[in-house]
Amino acid sequence: MSDAVSPLATPFPDLPPIAGVTPCVARAGYKNWGRCDLTYVELAAGTAVAGVFTRNVCCSSEVEIGRDNVALGKARALVVNAGNSNAFTGYRGREAVEQIMDQVAGHLGCAREEVFVSSTGVIGVPLPKDKAREGVTAALTASVCTWEEAARTISTTDTFPKGATATAMVGGTKVTIAGIIKGSGMIAPDMATMLGYLFTDAAVSPAFLQECLSRANTRTFSCITVDSDTSTSDTVLAFATGQAGNPALTSYDDPGADAFAAAIHDVCRQLAHLVVRDGEGASKFIAVTVTGAVSDESAHRVGLAIANSPLVKTAIAGEDANWGRVVMAVGKAGEPANRDTLSIGFGGIWAARDGLPLADYDEAPVAAHLKGQDISVEVDLGLGEGRAQVWTCDLTHGYISINADYRS
Amino acid sequence: MSDAVSPLATPFPDLPPIAGVTPCVARAGYKNWGRCDLTYVELAAGTAVAGVFTRNVCCSSEVEIGRDNVALGKARALVVNAGNSNAFTGYRGREAVEQIMDQVAGHLGCAREEVFVSSTGVIGVPLPKDKAREGVTAALTASVCTWEEAARTISTTDTFPKGATATAMVGGTKVTIAGIIKGSGMIAPDMATMLGYLFTDAAVSPAFLQECLSRANTRTFSCITVDSDTSTSDTVLAFATGQAGNPALTSYDDPGADAFAAAIHDVCRQLAHLVVRDGEGASKFIAVTVTGAVSDESAHRVGLAIANSPLVKTAIAGEDANWGRVVMAVGKAGEPANRDTLSIGFGGIWAARDGLPLADYDEAPVAAHLKGQDISVEVDLGLGEGRAQVWTCDLTHGYISINADYRS
Repeated sequence: MSDAVSPLATPFPDLPPIAGVTPCVARAGYKNWGRCDLTYVELAAGTAVAGVFTRNVCCSSEVEIGRDNVALGKARALVVNAGNSNAFTGYRGREAVEQIMDQVAGHLGCAREEVFVSSTGVIGVPLPKDKAREGVTAALTASVCTWEEAARTISTTDTFPKGATATAMVGGTKVTIAGIIKGSGMIAPDMATMLGYLFTDAAVSPAFLQECLSRANTRTFSCITVDSDTSTSDTVLAFATGQAGNPALTSYDDPGADAFAAAIHDVCRQLAHLVVRDGEGASKFIAVTVTGAVSDESAHRVGLAIANSPLVKTAIAGEDANWGRVVMAVGKAGEPANRDTLSIGFGGIWAARDGLPLADYDEAPVAAHLKGQDISVEVDLGLGEGRAQVWTCDLTHGYISINADYRS
Repeated sequence: MSDAVSPLATPFPDLPPIAGVTPCVARAGYKNWGRCDLTYVELAAGTAVAGVFTRNVCCSSEVEIGRDNVALGKARALVVNAGNSNAFTGYRGREAVEQIMDQVAGHLGCAREEVFVSSTGVIGVPLPKDKAREGVTAALTASVCTWEEAARTISTTDTFPKGATATAMVGGTKVTIAGIIKGSGMIAPDMATMLGYLFTDAAVSPAFLQECLSRANTRTFSCITVDSDTSTSDTVLAFATGQAGNPALTSYDDPGADAFAAAIHDVCRQLAHLVVRDGEGASKFIAVTVTGAVSDESAHRVGLAIANSPLVKTAIAGEDANWGRVVMAVGKAGEPANRDTLSIGFGGIWAARDGLPLADYDEAPVAAHLKGQDISVEVDLGLGEGRAQVWTCDLTHGYISINADYRS
């Protein structure tokens, strides 16, 4: 955790305990930090698991192994190491992950494939096995901690702890979801990593949990960007202990399945927004809405082209209603667009419509909107029914300071 | 032109006159600048033309019209307006371009399609027709100017004028190429635009001139990036007056054709590098070399992923040998790559080979290299024979200051 808190930070919410989920923290000492850096979450027997992972082809062993084991659908424990991503460390890094899995599996008497491991921090340094062993030993006998302590312990250079919760009624039973996430702070030579975890007491099959998570991911985590750089370790896992006692969900046809999927989506959206709110150097939270595209996928790609444009992001940092830069970003996205049907707005006010600056454009209300912390950019391509929303932050001196001013 | 000169600036070279090419400058007063802002270049009858243009679909009328007319192969004049890009201005912008074409064609007694117009500057404001008419009138009677004056006049927020030259022997005759370019400086709300012009006295068919320019473009202008944002107005035009008296070149089979193509490539490469050296906020010139890719195209895309990565660019700004960020950028490029055959180096020194940090890696010489102004990053993917080189600059506080700190 960093000392300087993001101006976009929100208070940690009141996250309820989840039956069958026991979080603990310990100190492995991966870095010279005076705080816990190893998070251990024990999960009741029968817990289902689902996950989504980075598509970076240089991914860590944790991601490779996790992707394989999520397919088996069962989980008994989660271990998160903070301060070392263990990425690009070859066989030595893989051995460290397997050691942790074996140690926890021996303690719980479960299969090693039911133990999930994530790591976040510096790249290219194998996770030290001795520190990992001692840290896990300490965690296995630690007392239960709060969600906020767990959220702080999985963090690296985040500036505030991040959590979210939602409930759903499933067949007359209330089920609860609690989620924590870390991401977006970075001090060289560390690499930002988004690690997110959802825990629910709902009874749900692994396949349907995966379907809910994958669908939510498409509309939430895949719709945020801070700086267009994709981490080697991004991971979101969802665990369902089944202890709420609801009739088990196995498909969208089951009663309450839609409510459960909506609650998963809600928690994912909250967590995704929190990562953007802790984006490096962020001073504004930006929602980009694209309508009128030839398809939703096309709208999504246009939205990301805008959200990743350094010129758009610096203009918003400067509170400048520079819609010409949005035009530029639309045009470079490589998607169908027609200059003469393109409209651009800020804060719900059109600056240009159908390829022309508005004759009666009044910049005053737009300028007032841009002085706020929550900015919206609207783009209508005027071609079809495709639409999408993406979220990002502005690009400020803070980003440069975080990533260039400090030497490794 | 900006007051603060880039630390990577180079002196304007000694550009020779080109027979059949007469540059003049005048003041149209598009902005409140105390200097000339309209460049007029008269070209002798029989001049061949070739061009490459932005692929931004929201391109300006100048680009649309220029693309059509380059296909006809003949040119008599070039007009460049600085201070207003005339992009995203609909029919009103198009009328202004056509007015300029008609005015010059009337003066020269040529077809309007032989008059090429470029504009650079603020987006979304139609080029004022009255100012354009008066500026062109003044230019048509102005006396010839130097190449350096022309290079300064096409500039907007560039920090130094940019030119390059080369010669080639064609069938026993020396032919000469002179080129000028502007690009990469920007103060909100202007949009950076790369405009480049090559002039040669060589006799060459329009089709072969286009082939030489297109091939050179692929390896030069298409290999540079400052911030990944593609302008709506990027244009490079080549004009050949034929007055050197060489046997006309029509294909690579003609004597001297290879030498001529190499000279065109040489001028394009010099001009492209000058744009990077004037990149917004640049303090380092970075060459990224990718080898071992499955194809040259794949190597090019991996190179651009590295050169566009804010994390790689800020690390180099901080003189930090953070090769983990290069690994990340390779992995996110969407191209074939294998973590376990990947090698990364700086300044010719490997930091990681075949997926592992080098055990005996000595950072001292790498740190010394990174303190310099000319930085090289080497990536070997270990998969095939594909290779490419791209050029960029670092990402500094200067970029943020130029693009966020000033209001429109």
